[in-house]
Amino acid sequence: MTGTDPRAVMRALIEQAHPYRGLAAPNPVVAAAVVRNGEWVAAGVHTRAGGDHAEVVALKRAGDKAVGATLYVTLEPCTHWGKTPPCCSAIIAAGIAHVVWAVDDPSPHVRRQPAESVLQAAGIGVTRGILADDARLLNPAFHRADPAAPFITMKLAQSLDGKLALDNGDSAYLTSDSARRYVHQIRNAVDAIVVGAETVWTDNPALTIRHGIASTREPAVIVASRDPRTPKRLRTMRLFSANRPVYVTTLTESGIETVQRVDAQGQWGPEEALTAVLPAPHLLVEGGATIVDQMLQAGVVDELLVMVAPCILGGAQYWGGFQSPDSLMNRQCLAHTQVHQFDDTVMIQGLT
Amino acid sequence: MTGTDPRAVMRALIEQAHPYRGLAAPNPVVAAAVVRNGEWVAAGVHTRAGGDHAEVVALKRAGDKAVGATLYVTLEPCTHWGKTPPCCSAIIAAGIAHVVWAVDDPSPHVRRQPAESVLQAAGIGVTRGILADDARLLNPAFHRADPAAPFITMKLAQSLDGKLALDNGDSAYLTSDSARRYVHQIRNAVDAIVVGAETVWTDNPALTIRHGIASTREPAVIVASRDPRTPKRLRTMRLFSANRPVYVTTLTESGIETVQRVDAQGQWGPEEALTAVLPAPHLLVEGGATIVDQMLQAGVVDELLVMVAPCILGGAQYWGGFQSPDSLMNRQCLAHTQVHQFDDTVMIQGLT
Repeated sequence: MTGTDPRAVMRALIEQAHPYRGLAAPNPVVAAAVVRNGEWVAAGVHTRAGGDHAEVVALKRAGDKAVGATLYVTLEPCTHWGKTPPCCSAIIAAGIAHVVWAVDDPSPHVRRQPAESVLQAAGIGVTRGILADDARLLNPAFHRADPAAPFITMKLAQSLDGKLALDNGDSAYLTSDSARRYVHQIRNAVDAIVVGAETVWTDNPALTIRHGIASTREPAVIVASRDPRTPKRLRTMRLFSANRPVYVTTLTESGIETVQRVDAQGQWGPEEALTAVLPAPHLLVEGGATIVDQMLQAGVVDELLVMVAPCILGGAQYWGGFQSPDSLMNRQCLAHTQVHQFDDTVMIQGLT
Repeated sequence: MTGTDPRAVMRALIEQAHPYRGLAAPNPVVAAAVVRNGEWVAAGVHTRAGGDHAEVVALKRAGDKAVGATLYVTLEPCTHWGKTPPCCSAIIAAGIAHVVWAVDDPSPHVRRQPAESVLQAAGIGVTRGILADDARLLNPAFHRADPAAPFITMKLAQSLDGKLALDNGDSAYLTSDSARRYVHQIRNAVDAIVVGAETVWTDNPALTIRHGIASTREPAVIVASRDPRTPKRLRTMRLFSANRPVYVTTLTESGIETVQRVDAQGQWGPEEALTAVLPAPHLLVEGGATIVDQMLQAGVVDELLVMVAPCILGGAQYWGGFQSPDSLMNRQCLAHTQVHQFDDTVMIQGLT
């Protein structure tokens, strides 16, 4: 790739990072490139927590060619020691002349010592905010406005006609294999998966992370149900097999406020605040039309991932079954939408 | 652009042609590029009937640089005199060494004298069939399997949740301005627009070609209705203002078989076979859930254009309301899907 339009370089980097979303959890996915005289010398993506950050991958690959070059990166470089040394030190040592990034790192330790001041003190030029909104969509929970609040990603897998299942409830393998793998990557990045009890009874899902993803995390499961028999019925279900916490919740108009832990014997604990059990959780809702509509009406969904398979199902298993507004002016629109393709499945991503 | 992968060049050409679909009607949209040593020397798109064909635009722009170069084109070059001289003559005169095209031209005069034999007789190399399926989607009616049969394109404009309108029927300006302009381009390429009577009563649409498109064509209108009062009610509607033929039809299980012409006084003529009035018509269905579902169940839709706006409408104005199949194996899938973006509106295109 050649070219010196910073927006074009950044757009290409965001495209490179996107397929790896969730894999480096709890870290955000980041891509970086070393560009000299309009030519891509080297690029890198951070794909594994504990592995080299994207900047370091790109700088190592660039070697001497980094001297005097520009480093593009989708996220502000870190300035602190984590599992790896600070990227800003590596950038300075490599002889980079200019750093361009898309979006600032909201982490408190980076905000205490911003990369801009560290790099400028070393005589390195800095450009910030190139395609910031697009880069934020790579790691929307990481960039959430209130880092103490839950962040809710809702995934839907539907036909062209907006149906989530056949009338008989069957919905397995509606979308492409690569689309389902991407959902497992998202599972790898969240603290809990939320499903409706109906989905559990119909599909008996394992809700584990598969598709060859080397996961060290196993998100908790939260089952939404108002039926008092649900804890006892759950114990025979596959979602217990992974030995992770399972909770039951009753969805209120404010969303998920309290949860009750259920054990594999169908016993349940006391009601606890969601954020006491899972502080500032990133939740992935995998509906079910009932829970999808409840969460949307509660107004608590932050990010929507709509997977559309190129087929027509017919039937009445549609979502968005609540009353439509009086005017199109009042419809609920997504902000900052992006479109991605997973073979024949199209994903429309956006923030609500 | 650089690169010598024929598929990459052809994909880029198809992308270049796509935004112009319908504008050159009754001609197909075609894009061409002159490539020498992996470098794009010049490119062109056929955007207006009577104007230079894409090959000629590219060759004129390339000038002397065409000598010994490869010409890529999305459609087999023509070998006959139409409104302009045959492209193959221009290709030979320009000194092109090799021609690569995606899909053969089904026109009888080209089939009688295929470009391959004309070019090879002049010592020019030929490669055919690169991304033929994708190129066919640029002009699907032109490439229809049975040139004597009607070809039906159905356009849907919907929200993420598959709703075509609010519960009160309002659906104006759901999709982006550029998406609506594209639909007007398609109107420019078809022989008739099909709407349900409900859509006429609710929206009173003009169904003309606007958005700054220099159209010399005005497609007929076919209103689907079983109500005998429809002809009389139609006369006050805007769709008569364009002075073009207006027909009423009753959809049968085999689709549109017969039509009755209606005049601006609400008088109607005898029932006639559709293909007697409009031979081998390309029809554009702009539903309306009722007519959409009727046409899908009749199994007569050839091409589907699903425009998805990134919003949630709620309500019950969904399509695909017929019974779902017993198994996902029996769902109706699109073949050869493509995805295009019109600002924040996503279009999923496919053949049924």
